[in-house]
Amino acid sequence: MTLASEEGFLQFIDRFFPRESSHLLVGRGDDCAVIACREDLCLTSDLFLEDVHFRRSYFSAADIGYKALAVNISDIAAMGAKPHGFTLNLMIPEGLTESFWSDFFHGMSRLATEHGLVLAGGDLSRSSLLGIDVAMWGQSRGRYLQRQRCQPGDLLFLIGEIGLARAGLSVLEGGADPEAFPQAVSAHLRPSLHCGPAEALGRNDRVKGLMDVSDGLARDLPRFLGVGRGASLSFEPGTVHEEVSRFCRERGFSSQEFAFLGGEDYALLGAAPKEAWKEVLAAAPGARRIGMVTEEPGILLSGRPVSEQGFDHFG
Amino acid sequence: MTLASEEGFLQFIDRFFPRESSHLLVGRGDDCAVIACREDLCLTSDLFLEDVHFRRSYFSAADIGYKALAVNISDIAAMGAKPHGFTLNLMIPEGLTESFWSDFFHGMSRLATEHGLVLAGGDLSRSSLLGIDVAMWGQSRGRYLQRQRCQPGDLLFLIGEIGLARAGLSVLEGGADPEAFPQAVSAHLRPSLHCGPAEALGRNDRVKGLMDVSDGLARDLPRFLGVGRGASLSFEPGTVHEEVSRFCRERGFSSQEFAFLGGEDYALLGAAPKEAWKEVLAAAPGARRIGMVTEEPGILLSGRPVSEQGFDHFG
Repeated sequence: MTLASEEGFLQFIDRFFPRESSHLLVGRGDDCAVIACREDLCLTSDLFLEDVHFRRSYFSAADIGYKALAVNISDIAAMGAKPHGFTLNLMIPEGLTESFWSDFFHGMSRLATEHGLVLAGGDLSRSSLLGIDVAMWGQSRGRYLQRQRCQPGDLLFLIGEIGLARAGLSVLEGGADPEAFPQAVSAHLRPSLHCGPAEALGRNDRVKGLMDVSDGLARDLPRFLGVGRGASLSFEPGTVHEEVSRFCRERGFSSQEFAFLGGEDYALLGAAPKEAWKEVLAAAPGARRIGMVTEEPGILLSGRPVSEQGFDHFG
Repeated sequence: MTLASEEGFLQFIDRFFPRESSHLLVGRGDDCAVIACREDLCLTSDLFLEDVHFRRSYFSAADIGYKALAVNISDIAAMGAKPHGFTLNLMIPEGLTESFWSDFFHGMSRLATEHGLVLAGGDLSRSSLLGIDVAMWGQSRGRYLQRQRCQPGDLLFLIGEIGLARAGLSVLEGGADPEAFPQAVSAHLRPSLHCGPAEALGRNDRVKGLMDVSDGLARDLPRFLGVGRGASLSFEPGTVHEEVSRFCRERGFSSQEFAFLGGEDYALLGAAPKEAWKEVLAAAPGARRIGMVTEEPGILLSGRPVSEQGFDHFG
């Protein structure tokens, strides 16, 4: 069986990922990759661990490969940048079949191809648990959009859904029939990415910042605002996805609060002056206004204070 | 206890690692780090996992922090480059004390400071096992030294010990009194790095290549030579460390073969034309000649064929 040795596994990986790329001077198979670079670049890395970030009971192998890469792409997009390539460190437990790995790499390589990403290198290790560790780099053709650059009076906007992945997780963990909530389930297993709009926003000087909402708006919005600023939020009809509304209605939850708490959404949160709203919409046609930055610290949702309790990966 | 939350753990890390660096435009605390860059750079990433790469029974917390970083520095050095910074993904099991983490970060941050490395970002996750995943970048002021660029007739040379870390591992796993083999034990727990000589070799156009010998010369030499080339090795007196000789003599092993098999050494293997040997020595005063590249595939050690069996992290 080809996957029993390190060399065999590396040859297997070669079937899914080309070695050559205009972004690389030296690719896989040396001590380091050498990245062709004349300008600043951005770098991120994320863990994706079994029974912490995913369960094999409802993630297909292809879903695991997809999402391990997607969460890093979303971090690059949140800087207003375009991802170029990644390194892959794999923690490999005993007993996974060639069919599993084939599906895994198909899920990952399709997403990599879609975004023009090269696999530049990495590391393989036996392990007691399945884990995927990706480091990814990218570049912006405009500015790198940071957190904590917005000012009172700026509009806050969202690209992508909030609360939908949280509903999907509840459904997948046994809370409801997955077939009744297909988009919620998909949002958890295969989060949508927003690279095109994010890059376009990076090229607009009036945009104040952008951030990946991976821990839920409740936890991530204060990180985006920074110390000494607050926000007044108001979700217009349509801000909360129909499946989230239905999921919450059946359970007597407030769908606005559920969406605010969220988690695992990989939506993008941005800020811009009011006067730039048309430009934001031109760059990101799916953007929705969700409120504005205030001088008073604290967050109001429809005029009522809400607490900063989101999804904590760590707790 | 401060380490019970993600924010608390991040604040704890801030005590050990400065945020600012001339290599960074955006440091920790955003979706990505932004690296200040006008030239090509090299990138590597490595896993360092409990009970695969280290044991807590004989690695101190500071040793774990040191070695997790050191193995990546060695990869950068093997390209003839200087390391600049890294991202750190930590897999955190329950039950480790603040004292453990303080020692861990001390071990890591001292090495980072010594090499001028900035911690640029990363990820934290709960996990059933302790694991450290580092991605590191660096740059060469000369060339990036690759594998498979040497030619028949070139000298092969080593910087650093071979077999010493393997003896140390055997000792630590119960094979002998650690106090009788202090340098072997140290070679396994805290491998020496060779950054200065490596960077100097990167600036010399006559050097044909350099490689990190992490899996043992037996496995790594063929990777360095490439297809269709072989090597004739001859270890002069002093090539094998006294502790390796003694360890092998007590057990009736061939110390040359033991050193050839090696593993976890993080010595550097290089090649250069004979005429450039004085320049190699000027750049890397500790370099020792170990043989030459041949046209005939296969490896001879003191005239006898040796097989390619080294330490396999994967098997």
